[in-house]
Amino acid sequence: MQGERAVLICSGGLDSTILLYDLVNGGYKVDVLTFDYGQRHKKEIRYAKKTCKLLGLKHIVVDLKNINSLLGGSCLTSKDVEVPEGHYSDDSMKATVVPNRNMIMLSIAIGYAESLAIFKVLIANHFGDRAQYPDCRKEFIEALNNTSKLGTYNKVEVLSPFNNLTKAEIVKIGIDLKLPFKNTWTCYKGLKRPCLKCGSCIERSEAFYLNNVKDPLLTKREWKEVLSYIVK
Amino acid sequence: MQGERAVLICSGGLDSTILLYDLVNGGYKVDVLTFDYGQRHKKEIRYAKKTCKLLGLKHIVVDLKNINSLLGGSCLTSKDVEVPEGHYSDDSMKATVVPNRNMIMLSIAIGYAESLAIFKVLIANHFGDRAQYPDCRKEFIEALNNTSKLGTYNKVEVLSPFNNLTKAEIVKIGIDLKLPFKNTWTCYKGLKRPCLKCGSCIERSEAFYLNNVKDPLLTKREWKEVLSYIVK
Repeated sequence: MQGERAVLICSGGLDSTILLYDLVNGGYKVDVLTFDYGQRHKKEIRYAKKTCKLLGLKHIVVDLKNINSLLGGSCLTSKDVEVPEGHYSDDSMKATVVPNRNMIMLSIAIGYAESLAIFKVLIANHFGDRAQYPDCRKEFIEALNNTSKLGTYNKVEVLSPFNNLTKAEIVKIGIDLKLPFKNTWTCYKGLKRPCLKCGSCIERSEAFYLNNVKDPLLTKREWKEVLSYIVK
Repeated sequence: MQGERAVLICSGGLDSTILLYDLVNGGYKVDVLTFDYGQRHKKEIRYAKKTCKLLGLKHIVVDLKNINSLLGGSCLTSKDVEVPEGHYSDDSMKATVVPNRNMIMLSIAIGYAESLAIFKVLIANHFGDRAQYPDCRKEFIEALNNTSKLGTYNKVEVLSPFNNLTKAEIVKIGIDLKLPFKNTWTCYKGLKRPCLKCGSCIERSEAFYLNNVKDPLLTKREWKEVLSYIVK
C-alpha cells in the first residue's frame, strides 16, 4: 500500500539491503533497525547507515552489545571462536549461529512497531539460510508471526518475503532495482576487504556468478580469485 | 528433575520470586535473569539481587536500558506518562503495558539457555495479568514456546507454570514455602515505600488479604491504609 509504514531489520548485508530497496520501490515508508550485538563484522553497520542516508530513511542502530556475552559459542560474537572457511552447507558453519538472534532482533522490532502503531515488521532471511539457522526457517517465522499477533494490541505482523527465494534470485531483484551493491557488506570476518573464503563470501559471489554479473563490491582480481573457489 | 538446570526471568517482584523459590524447592538449579529496561521501579532489581544472593544462585542483570527509548508510551519506561492509580481491571492500566516486553525478555533468555544447553526457560505470568497484558496470556506463551522450539537446536521450552493461578493462589505457594516476602518489591512507582494505590500495590495487597495474611513488606499503618482501599 502506497505510504504504508513498515519496520525492517537491515544488517547492511546483501539480502536485507535488497529487501529495503524493494520495499521503498513498492511505496513503503520504512523505519530501519540495525543491531549492534558486538558482531565481528560490525562494519556492516556503516554500510546500513550509508544506504539509509542515501534513501533518506529513519535509521536506528540498536545497541545490544550488553547482551553479547550472554550469547556465547558463536564465531560472530566471540573472538575465541574462529570464522570457518568453506561452503555454507558444511557442518562447521554451525559456529556462525548466534543463539536465537532473529527472535531477539524481531522481538525488539515488534515492540518498536507496536509503540508507534506500525503494523508490519520485516526480515530478509532466505531459502539458503535454512540449512544452518533454525531461526531463519519459514516455520519459525510463521510461528513468530502468530506469537506477535497474540502478544500485541495491534496484531503486528512479521513477514519474510524472501523466505522461498535463493540468494541468486534475491540478487536478481537487486540488479533489476539498480541497487548500488558496493554499499553492502557480507564477509563475516569484517576485515578491510572481503576474505573471499568464508561461507558468507562464497555464497554472495555464487549468487552474482549465477546472474552472470561481477560483484561490484569486489576488484577484478578479487572476483577472479573467488571464482576459482566457486567454479569447479 | 533433581539438579536439572533452568533459566528464570525474575523481576524481583512477588510472582517471579515465588516461582524461583518453588523451582529451587523442586530441585532445579536456576540461572536467574533480571532485566533493566530503564523501568521506573528499577529498585525491584535490588530485591532480585538480594534473593539470589540469599539462595546462592547465579544472577545476571541484563542491561537493556539502550532500548528503553524504542518502547515508548508506557508509564513504566517513560517519565512523561504517569502511573495510573486504581484497580488493575481499569482500562487506564493499559498505560502500564511495555510493548512486547515479555517476548523481548524471553527471546534473550532463550538465547542464553541455548548457548549453555539449558532446556527450560520460565516466566511467572499469571491469570490476573491477562486482562491488560496480551503478552501474558496463555495462548501467547504457548505460541512462543512453539516458536522457541523451532528456532533453537536444543528445542528450548518456554514454560509459565503460574498461567492459570490467581495472585492469591501464588501467594499461598509463597506462604507454604516460608518465603521472606519483605525481599520482594511490587509498586510501579518505585519510591522509597510502596504507594499503596497503583494497580500493582492493590493487586498484591488483595492477594495477601485473601490469604488472611498481612503483607510482611508493609508496616501496620500501611497495611491498614491499603485495606481501606480494598475492603469495601
